[in-house]
Parts: sequence; structure tokens; C-alpha cells
Amino acid sequence: MTTPTNNGYRVAVVGATGAVGEAMLEILAERKFPIAEIAALASSQSVGREVSYGRKSVVVDDLATFDFKGWDFALFSAGGSVSAEHAPRAAAAGCIVIDNTSHFRMDPEVPLVVPEVNGEVLKDFKGGIIANPNCSTIQMLLAVAPIHHRVGVARINVCTYQSVSGAGRAAMEELGRQCADRFNFRDPAPEVFSLPIAFNVLPAIDLFEENGYTREEMKMHRETQRILDSTDLQVNATAVRVPVFIGHGEAVHLETIKPISVEEVAALLDTAPGVKLLQGAELATPLTHASGHDEVWVCRLRKDLSHPQGIDFWVVADNVRKGAALNAVQIAEYLIEAKG
Amino acid sequence: MTTPTNNGYRVAVVGATGAVGEAMLEILAERKFPIAEIAALASSQSVGREVSYGRKSVVVDDLATFDFKGWDFALFSAGGSVSAEHAPRAAAAGCIVIDNTSHFRMDPEVPLVVPEVNGEVLKDFKGGIIANPNCSTIQMLLAVAPIHHRVGVARINVCTYQSVSGAGRAAMEELGRQCADRFNFRDPAPEVFSLPIAFNVLPAIDLFEENGYTREEMKMHRETQRILDSTDLQVNATAVRVPVFIGHGEAVHLETIKPISVEEVAALLDTAPGVKLLQGAELATPLTHASGHDEVWVCRLRKDLSHPQGIDFWVVADNVRKGAALNAVQIAEYLIEAKG
Repeated sequence: MTTPTNNGYRVAVVGATGAVGEAMLEILAERKFPIAEIAALASSQSVGREVSYGRKSVVVDDLATFDFKGWDFALFSAGGSVSAEHAPRAAAAGCIVIDNTSHFRMDPEVPLVVPEVNGEVLKDFKGGIIANPNCSTIQMLLAVAPIHHRVGVARINVCTYQSVSGAGRAAMEELGRQCADRFNFRDPAPEVFSLPIAFNVLPAIDLFEENGYTREEMKMHRETQRILDSTDLQVNATAVRVPVFIGHGEAVHLETIKPISVEEVAALLDTAPGVKLLQGAELATPLTHASGHDEVWVCRLRKDLSHPQGIDFWVVADNVRKGAALNAVQIAEYLIEAKG
Repeated sequence: MTTPTNNGYRVAVVGATGAVGEAMLEILAERKFPIAEIAALASSQSVGREVSYGRKSVVVDDLATFDFKGWDFALFSAGGSVSAEHAPRAAAAGCIVIDNTSHFRMDPEVPLVVPEVNGEVLKDFKGGIIANPNCSTIQMLLAVAPIHHRVGVARINVCTYQSVSGAGRAAMEELGRQCADRFNFRDPAPEVFSLPIAFNVLPAIDLFEENGYTREEMKMHRETQRILDSTDLQVNATAVRVPVFIGHGEAVHLETIKPISVEEVAALLDTAPGVKLLQGAELATPLTHASGHDEVWVCRLRKDLSHPQGIDFWVVADNVRKGAALNAVQIAEYLIEAKG
């Protein structure tokens, strides 16, 4: 990271025309990230298009020919293969890469970071690539980490209710189109998803691994172990796509190593950074609470009747913001603060 | 139960204008249930309306003044308070009542029956009321019971993805109306549900009990214990409403008492009555598999990586049919067969 020029940093957003890229630009402006110069990068097809950065608009440049030399941060969200090709090139040019794809997440040389949870792994960061975890992992860990740090978490049974925005803009358009088709008595033709998503739920996200879990589910398992630095912690996930545009919900049933009361968990979550706890019968939903907000909402906290050390809750967050764009920007902010 | 006259039984459907009542009439006709005379009953507001019974139509009679004397079966699905008032009256008149509400489900005098699972509890049935379990319980147990009977099930973590039809016809209309509102840039006003359901998920169904679970979740716990006759079996449920019209999905994570392999479970489910097992990466969804079908579909069967005796799967069924109307009709068929 170079010393900021003009009181600001040079930041490139890669995948600037995607749902997450757009949110990155919006959040950088919204949070008044100290920017001296901004670049919006995408594939050659999008070159020349304009994207919004706060009230300004930025013309999209070609990632393939972009020279990262002299740039402080590059926030990548253009798919794993794009990151595989261009992130090392940006890092080699001295730019700090914060990558939103899964490509580098299991690389032991690459820190995998949720700032509120394990930001301290960045204290010896010397430059290169930092990985942004999977959206479902991030929101779960914001609520699980305080409990894990207090009494240890042994096992998590989690079922997700994931919005279509996690599959990108085309998936959001597909949900809208299929709903309209239904209202017009046309049979919706699935394109992004393998089966209709309008008025339906799809009990698998991403490809299958050999053990019968999907990649999405195994990400929650492996990334949780890495971020909480505990290979004993087991995550048994079922990841399901629901016909919601923005916001992922998760029903979390966890088992702690040492006992803890619901009241103690409530006290922990009530003061946990980035977490908003709703008590009693108040519900947090993707549409009414998560979408467009930075917080991770927790509700339905209760003692699990089936396990002596079980705790249940519901957690919901904006997967495009905290699950992706916001977390990436927060990583950059964390580095600046640590340096400052 | 009287001896059938004209090769058939006299059957009354109570709540005939509701979503489940309509399905009961449809299923009775579809399955060629031996009917000598059919009565469609509802509250006084609906008297005189016509409902379909196969290709015929039946005029709705007034439940309040209906005399059940001489009637063989009454299938009730008009809400708990209606059953509380009229089911005992029908039973006292010598009619066998199959009640779809939760009102009598925990009454030790009233059998709680899923015919494929515990039909044998009806072998000494002398008349009176039989309770139809909750929709979420029925479909879960069709898949869980064969495993429980082989190796014992100790604990179930289950998260539901429940369609709006479970909340009745008005809830289905609300989902449709709210979607149309969104497309017309109007803000949907929730009426049946406390929060918008279109493009949203609601992480609670029914009222809350003191332990932080909802009634819907506790039904799954208590009814499972009763039907499987095991007070040791613990069900930790999170019940969630999703914007789907018909068909409930459930992600089931269970722990067995004795070990069992995934292959053995697959063999059990492949031959389990009422169950259709999909292997490999094939998915069963509410819209494409459950809705309008009698079977309970199971897919995503896998070894739980987090527990030595854990098994995971996804189960989906038509909550209006197998979850309610069909199961009630099957109970009547079971009694006729046992008698014959």
C-alpha cells in the first residue's frame, strides 16, 4: 500500500458492472472511503459503459489491459477465473487485492477475513491477496464468533434461505421474469437455475462434491474452520435457494463446548460488532430488515430443547452488502486503520 | 361405522369451501372412495355455494344444523374451534371423525395417525375422533419412520420451507396480490401474515410458546414423539414460511441411536410406502415435484459430516394433499380395509 496521495487511495473495482461491483462502488462512496482515484474495470464487452460512484459516474475500463502499478487497492468480484488470472498480476504490481471469489479462500498464504471476527490476522499482512469469505459464512460467523470465543462451538447445524442475488444479476432478472410469466400464464423457462425459482425453492446451491454436500455447503464448513481457526468445529449445512431478491436467512442450531445460557448469548450478541439482536417475538426478514442494510440481524434466540448445550437462532443479512461488497470495503478500511 | 349402504359410505366434509376441504372432495373422487352420499358442510355464510366433487357439484349445507346421525365419516378441516364444537357432536352421533386441526392431537384418547407409519394404532379403534397430524410432521415422518424403526432416531434438527397454502386460501391470495403489487410499484399491505411474504421469508409460523419455539415447531416435536411412540426422540425445529403456493420443503438432519450407512437408508427409503427417493444430484422441489402429487419426495440423502451417526436429507410434499386432505382420506381407507 502506497502512502495516500491527495489524502486518498487509488482504488480499482473489478467486475464493476455486476451486482456486487455496483454495491462496492456505492458503499465506497457512502462510507466516504478516502479515494484519490477510482477505476471501474470489467471485461472488454463492458468497456465504455458508465457506472455510478456516489453522485458521479465512472467510465468502465478494460481489465485485460489495465496496469495496476501505482494502485493501492483492487476489489475483485468478477468470478473465480477472472481472479485466478488477474489478481496475482495486480498483487505483483504492488496493489492490495481483496478478492470476493472463492478462488483463493483455501490458499494458506491468503488471509480469509471477516474484520469483526478475525481482523487481527491482517496485523502482519505485507501485501498481496486477501480473500473475502462466502456470503453465507460471513453472516453466520458474525453471530457465531462471539459465542465461539466465549465457550467454544463444537458443531453447527445450519439451513440457509438464500436470495437469488447471490447468483448475480441474471438470476435476479430470472426471478422477476418467471414471476411475470406466471402472471401471464406462460411457463417460465429456467436459464440461470436448473429449475424454476419463482414460487419455488431449490434445495441445492452450486455443484455437488463427492460427499453429497454442495460446494456452497462445504464452503460454510471449511471457511468457518479457517476463520475461527478450529478444525474441530463441524458445520453441517443444507443450502437452499429461495425466491427472494436480496438477503440471505439462516436457521442456526449450534452446540457449544462449555455450557452457556440463552441470557449470556443474548448479552454477547447485543454488543457484538455488526450484529443487531431482536428479542422476544420480533422477526427479522430479508425484505424488511436485511436488504440495503449493513447489519446482520439475529432473532428467535432460544435454548435448543434437543441438546443440553444447544442454542438456536435465525440470522439474516444483505448478502450483496455484508455478504460481499461491504465486507471487502471493511477489510480495506481495517488495513488503513491498522496502518494509521 | 355403519355397514355401507349401496356399496358405499356416507361421508361429510366439514370446511368444504377451504383449500383443504376442496382437496378432500377432489381426493375422495379421484381415489374412487366408496361413497353412497356426500355432504359438503361449512359455516352459514357459505350455505348454498357449490363445490366440486369429481365432475359433480355439491351444494354446501350448514354445519351448525347438520345432523350427523347415520353418517359414517366426517372429515373436519375448518379450524380448531369449529372442531372443538362440532367434532364431539358428530362422534356422539356415531360418525367417525377424522379431524385435520390441532385441537385433539395431544388428547391421549384420540389416535394421531399417519397410516403408513402407525396405522396399527387403529386396530382397536371403536369409533370417535381420529386426529390428522400437522402437515410438516406427516411428510417428515414418512421418511424418518423407516429409519427409526430400523435403528432408532435420537434427535432431529429440521428446518422447514413452508408454502403459504398451509395458512389457507386467504394466504395464497395474499402472496399473489403482493407479487402483483410489487410489479405495479405498490407497497404490499400484509393482512394474513404479519410481514410481507412476497419475495421474502418469515422465520416463524403460528404463535410463540414460552420456550421460544413456535407452536408449529412444537407440533413437530410433540406429534413426532406421539406417532413414533418415543418420548426420547427430540425434534429441534425452525419453521419458516416461504413465498411458495403449494408444497412444503424440509431439510432434515437426524442422528440415529445405532449406526446405519447411507446405502442402508437409501434402501429403506426406496421401498418405504408413500416415499419417492431421488438419488445423486436430482432435486425435488415444491413446484416441480410436490404440488398436486401424493408422494413424499426425498433427495439429497447424505452422511452428515459433523456427527458419527448423522444422516441428512431433503423432503418435500404437497402439504394440502399428503399433509392434510390425502392423509385424512387414507385414514378412512385404512379403517375400511381393516374392517373388510
